[in-house]
Amino acid sequence: MQQVLSYIQKHQNDFLNNLNECLRIPSISVSPSHVSDVARCADFLAQRLKEMGMKRVEIFPTKRHPIVYAEWLEAPGHPTVLVYGHYDVQPVDPLNEWVKPPFEPDIRGGRLYARGSVDDKGQVYIHLSALEAYFRTWGRLPLNVKVLIEGEEEIGSPSLKNFLKEQKNLLKADEVIISDTPMLDREVPSICYGLRGLCYMEIHVSGSSQDLHSGMWGGTVENPVHVLAGILSKLKDKNGRILIPGFYKDVYPLSKTERRMLARLPASEKKLLKVTGSLKFTGEKGFSTLERMWARPTLDVNGIFGGFSGEGSKTIIPAKVGAKVSMRLVPDQDPDKIASAFKKHVEKISPLTVNVKVIKHHGSRAFLERLNHPIFEVAKRALEKAFGKKAHFIREGGSIPFVRTISDILKKPCVLLGFGLPDENAHAPNERLDLVNFFKGIEGMAYFYGDLAKWKV
Amino acid sequence: MQQVLSYIQKHQNDFLNNLNECLRIPSISVSPSHVSDVARCADFLAQRLKEMGMKRVEIFPTKRHPIVYAEWLEAPGHPTVLVYGHYDVQPVDPLNEWVKPPFEPDIRGGRLYARGSVDDKGQVYIHLSALEAYFRTWGRLPLNVKVLIEGEEEIGSPSLKNFLKEQKNLLKADEVIISDTPMLDREVPSICYGLRGLCYMEIHVSGSSQDLHSGMWGGTVENPVHVLAGILSKLKDKNGRILIPGFYKDVYPLSKTERRMLARLPASEKKLLKVTGSLKFTGEKGFSTLERMWARPTLDVNGIFGGFSGEGSKTIIPAKVGAKVSMRLVPDQDPDKIASAFKKHVEKISPLTVNVKVIKHHGSRAFLERLNHPIFEVAKRALEKAFGKKAHFIREGGSIPFVRTISDILKKPCVLLGFGLPDENAHAPNERLDLVNFFKGIEGMAYFYGDLAKWKV
Repeated sequence: MQQVLSYIQKHQNDFLNNLNECLRIPSISVSPSHVSDVARCADFLAQRLKEMGMKRVEIFPTKRHPIVYAEWLEAPGHPTVLVYGHYDVQPVDPLNEWVKPPFEPDIRGGRLYARGSVDDKGQVYIHLSALEAYFRTWGRLPLNVKVLIEGEEEIGSPSLKNFLKEQKNLLKADEVIISDTPMLDREVPSICYGLRGLCYMEIHVSGSSQDLHSGMWGGTVENPVHVLAGILSKLKDKNGRILIPGFYKDVYPLSKTERRMLARLPASEKKLLKVTGSLKFTGEKGFSTLERMWARPTLDVNGIFGGFSGEGSKTIIPAKVGAKVSMRLVPDQDPDKIASAFKKHVEKISPLTVNVKVIKHHGSRAFLERLNHPIFEVAKRALEKAFGKKAHFIREGGSIPFVRTISDILKKPCVLLGFGLPDENAHAPNERLDLVNFFKGIEGMAYFYGDLAKWKV
Repeated sequence: MQQVLSYIQKHQNDFLNNLNECLRIPSISVSPSHVSDVARCADFLAQRLKEMGMKRVEIFPTKRHPIVYAEWLEAPGHPTVLVYGHYDVQPVDPLNEWVKPPFEPDIRGGRLYARGSVDDKGQVYIHLSALEAYFRTWGRLPLNVKVLIEGEEEIGSPSLKNFLKEQKNLLKADEVIISDTPMLDREVPSICYGLRGLCYMEIHVSGSSQDLHSGMWGGTVENPVHVLAGILSKLKDKNGRILIPGFYKDVYPLSKTERRMLARLPASEKKLLKVTGSLKFTGEKGFSTLERMWARPTLDVNGIFGGFSGEGSKTIIPAKVGAKVSMRLVPDQDPDKIASAFKKHVEKISPLTVNVKVIKHHGSRAFLERLNHPIFEVAKRALEKAFGKKAHFIREGGSIPFVRTISDILKKPCVLLGFGLPDENAHAPNERLDLVNFFKGIEGMAYFYGDLAKWKV
């Protein structure tokens, strides 16, 4: 083990250079103009896995972006872990807010800046680097490893469900390890046991057949923006409760025990608020900030667009307006049921003077792991050894559709070991990864794989 | 007179070619990147006025876009008219909805398509062509004419007020003629005696310091889009009444006589509705469509923008969102007072969880002429001779800041002789001008100038 750790310490620069090569590929999965970049990134990763020593490296095509798979199964009698990550990234707009171009990795103040640095290429490379350290020192891995890196996470993993079902045998494992979540805070190594689900919708309201002169027609026709504003303002009440009938019906309530546990976490609301740059925290009444963040469903407009948005003024009544609206779900809300309820509610509160169209983008169920499985203790100790700090169990407000799907299919524990920080701008300009967490993360994963190997299967 | 009319009929093609040259100049006044095009258009018009025979052609610079002035004052004992128009045009987005490029004039189905064709270059050229016909046949004009063509109408004429005050003597006239309004309908020559005013505002709501991951933070911070939707939905009630305190205080009421007159106009609601492409007319309760369109104040969102608006999905809580909101005013509403009341109301209904900024763009007062001045009869007969149809007195929902300002300064009658049609997409893609109206308009103005010359001054 000492060999592995000292290899990791000596090769930090190499690990970083490898990651940077991957970060230079603009693998934006949502953008039709980046399809070939996404494919190039899959090829690049497959090559990397082969060079490292993984076997049966394969690229599985899907309807949109390929899945990269690799395995090394030469440790009979030891457990098999399935490691999941994604190599696709979010769009980069607003581009002018980036200090350096998003696909030219840049180190400033101990942080690596690039789109994908924390979400999720950097975290994928924590695992690849830990595995490489074993290959280069021991010539083998301490346990059996399967690696799955998908290219559609940022668009809701549309191909993954079928792939997991079809490849159930290929993916069979004793545990699933995912690194795509943030730590609670700097120097607070964290193991995540819950994720929220997602239901992503879009509303289009159209009135006239084209933009109208607001002088000539103002006062005579319905303005679609006013209709949309009315719809959006009827989705939540002043206490932050979502007004869609049936929305809370399947919500799994928070237990007293868990509420106590969450209340005791070393989370500083002041620090968290500073990360957001908001004036104050707010939201559904009756729940703490962490509870609202992790264990309560929410609804947010992700974007709104219609009419004139340039400098100065243009006197039109916009012909149409649209909004992206997404809901974060908790167990046991069903994204399909929620999408239908949303559509029904929006249609019900829409006036007959305009055309309202509700589109469903994608959805995923929330995930909640039983904390009593012993693998959580192994993970906790591994992180504590690497970071030299007490590790904590947390939940996460985001969604990783893979986790719930693989958990349902394999019925094996899924452990989320995250190395991002809440202020690292995943999905925003100037995304970054703390380099201490990157290097400690590699050590932590080396400990974790080593300790897990000692288990009987 | 017959000479003049036959010249007009023989030179239709030349008039059209002259106009097309002007339409090819993209004089978009709101766009900082078109400043030199706007200046080029002013030079072009000055050249045209000189060639035609006008005297003292001058370009007056302003802080933004120049004013073109020309005069011919060699008809002592005859009245002096001041003719107003504007050579600046609206922006062209959405560009992809134009059948042909907006600055390449194109004739299809008897209509001339181009940005500025109806608003207002085409109408300016109706006057220039009528005057040219006099110069080319009589070698002089029948009365004294001053021409003022500004380049800032589409941005609210910010420089015009001071210019009119400073140049009060230069601009002195017995009547003011403006062609920048639509006819009530095809084959309904119309004389407009009222315009609405304008108060153009912008609201910015900002929450977090940058876009946040909606999974990580959803449920904890205020979403600026929800706040803005709430604000917008509190600006009007379900009966279309504007909820800004004091908004209706100075509204000049519609008289019974005028309501009867408006009700008798040959306006087809069905035809008007078809122009808009809307499902139905709607608006403030208790008023007819024409009353709401011309004589009642309104409030419309002209554009809204914030967060992700691309294809597919992006899971963010937008850091900021904005909306352009403008109000059409009627006599005797004061745009400055209305702007203050708007700002106060928006600030009052804004929560403390976000920063709300209200910006005033520009404003202008409404205009209402006394219909009993005899010049209206002269105008009516001139139009009836040219069009061979009964002419009508109408109001207009749009705003021409010049009219109210010059009316206040000169205290002389302002007559709005419009040759546009309501469905000609002023301010929208595929703006066009009916060629019959263009040519009849030239004849109508020739009659008008000839008849007006017979007056004693």
